[in-house]
Amino acid sequence: MLLRVDLALLPAEAEAIDAEAFVVIDVLRATTTIAAFLAAGASRITAVDALDLGRERASKAGALLAGEVGGLPPKGFDFGNSPRDAAAAALTGREVVLFTTNGTRALCRLAARGPVYAGAVVNAGAVARAVVRAHRSAVLVCAGDAAGTRFGLDDFAAAGAIIAAIVAVASASELGDAARLALSLWDERGPAALRGSHHAGALRALGLGADIDFALEQDRFSCVPAVVAHGAGWVAIEDRAATP
Amino acid sequence: MLLRVDLALLPAEAEAIDAEAFVVIDVLRATTTIAAFLAAGASRITAVDALDLGRERASKAGALLAGEVGGLPPKGFDFGNSPRDAAAAALTGREVVLFTTNGTRALCRLAARGPVYAGAVVNAGAVARAVVRAHRSAVLVCAGDAAGTRFGLDDFAAAGAIIAAIVAVASASELGDAARLALSLWDERGPAALRGSHHAGALRALGLGADIDFALEQDRFSCVPAVVAHGAGWVAIEDRAATP
Repeated sequence: MLLRVDLALLPAEAEAIDAEAFVVIDVLRATTTIAAFLAAGASRITAVDALDLGRERASKAGALLAGEVGGLPPKGFDFGNSPRDAAAAALTGREVVLFTTNGTRALCRLAARGPVYAGAVVNAGAVARAVVRAHRSAVLVCAGDAAGTRFGLDDFAAAGAIIAAIVAVASASELGDAARLALSLWDERGPAALRGSHHAGALRALGLGADIDFALEQDRFSCVPAVVAHGAGWVAIEDRAATP
Repeated sequence: MLLRVDLALLPAEAEAIDAEAFVVIDVLRATTTIAAFLAAGASRITAVDALDLGRERASKAGALLAGEVGGLPPKGFDFGNSPRDAAAAALTGREVVLFTTNGTRALCRLAARGPVYAGAVVNAGAVARAVVRAHRSAVLVCAGDAAGTRFGLDDFAAAGAIIAAIVAVASASELGDAARLALSLWDERGPAALRGSHHAGALRALGLGADIDFALEQDRFSCVPAVVAHGAGWVAIEDRAATP
């Protein structure tokens, strides 16, 4: 039963917080896309933080390649980082190698400290229930911008959605300052807060506004993306909701 | 004329943001107390981040010693870190050496990058006007907890008060994600947000609730504390509103 929920506004803040488990949030778009790939049947997502490493791993494993540079898929990739494309694919049993930057780094760094999940609005309820069931304390971690050094309102609002789902099933949980602020933002403004983020504006400018709509389809998925293995620059993620 | 306002939720985030000027906020209680000392007539506040350095500088300069360890004044100090005591003192022309931890460190780190101010709710309007008048871009920096590694709702709410004062005189300013969030928090909830912070609760538990009330007396002071010199572990602060 979850007793304590904190929110790290940047990956670096998570280093200062003790907890049993961690939930990394990169809602536009990596953790939304990870949920979509798993929901589309992928058996495993390997997220890598370097393009070459991604190509190498995909080639060795016979996996599909997905990801982005500047919002668009690099040459030769099977997918970009669009959760819409991910959800529409038929991927049963396939492995997907996903090239992301900040989200992957945050996942790698935290994996050494305990169980790590990838959370988003599209699977907020499922991730919240899994964390409440299995852990006494959790830190939600906003992945921040590409370098992981700037706060983004998009991840913060998504954290609010997950915290709202947590307190719905574990109302006695103690919340840190940032967690309470995110919860009240989501309660009061909901998706509008995420849409108003700098990052959402940048995606709209690239013509990717439909990905924002997708990212806000709350509880569309019931998968629980969990890190099952990790190394230098990569994490392997599988759906823990699918295992007994 | 101020064109761009960002907010760093922790001192480390400020390193990733370019700006002409910086405003450090440690509203409970260092930057509130600094404003109170200057308003009480002190000619200079030297903030230091080590107790020994404080004793040494005060002794050499014939200055008064102020500060806290765990919320209370160390042995032999003339003042604690209470803005009420600071405001009630007669300090015309005196130098005060103030021992603080996170606020001083943030002030020192930023002083190498450009003009740095110490801001609070008690002088939000004066600091906002000074920054708008003199700079094209500014980053407000939440000092965080004692180690500067954890986000605090108290500094964040105080940042909202300063941003509200900024947009009142420079409505065309572009605000980053965190700055907009802090502004809306202050607009919607004001002092209650600060009172609800973890840090405010800790001060009330020490019987120091009256310092929180004091810290929320918006625009009680018109001083503009600015860093005028700095070195390893110390900054010298004077009132820039007092100079032509």
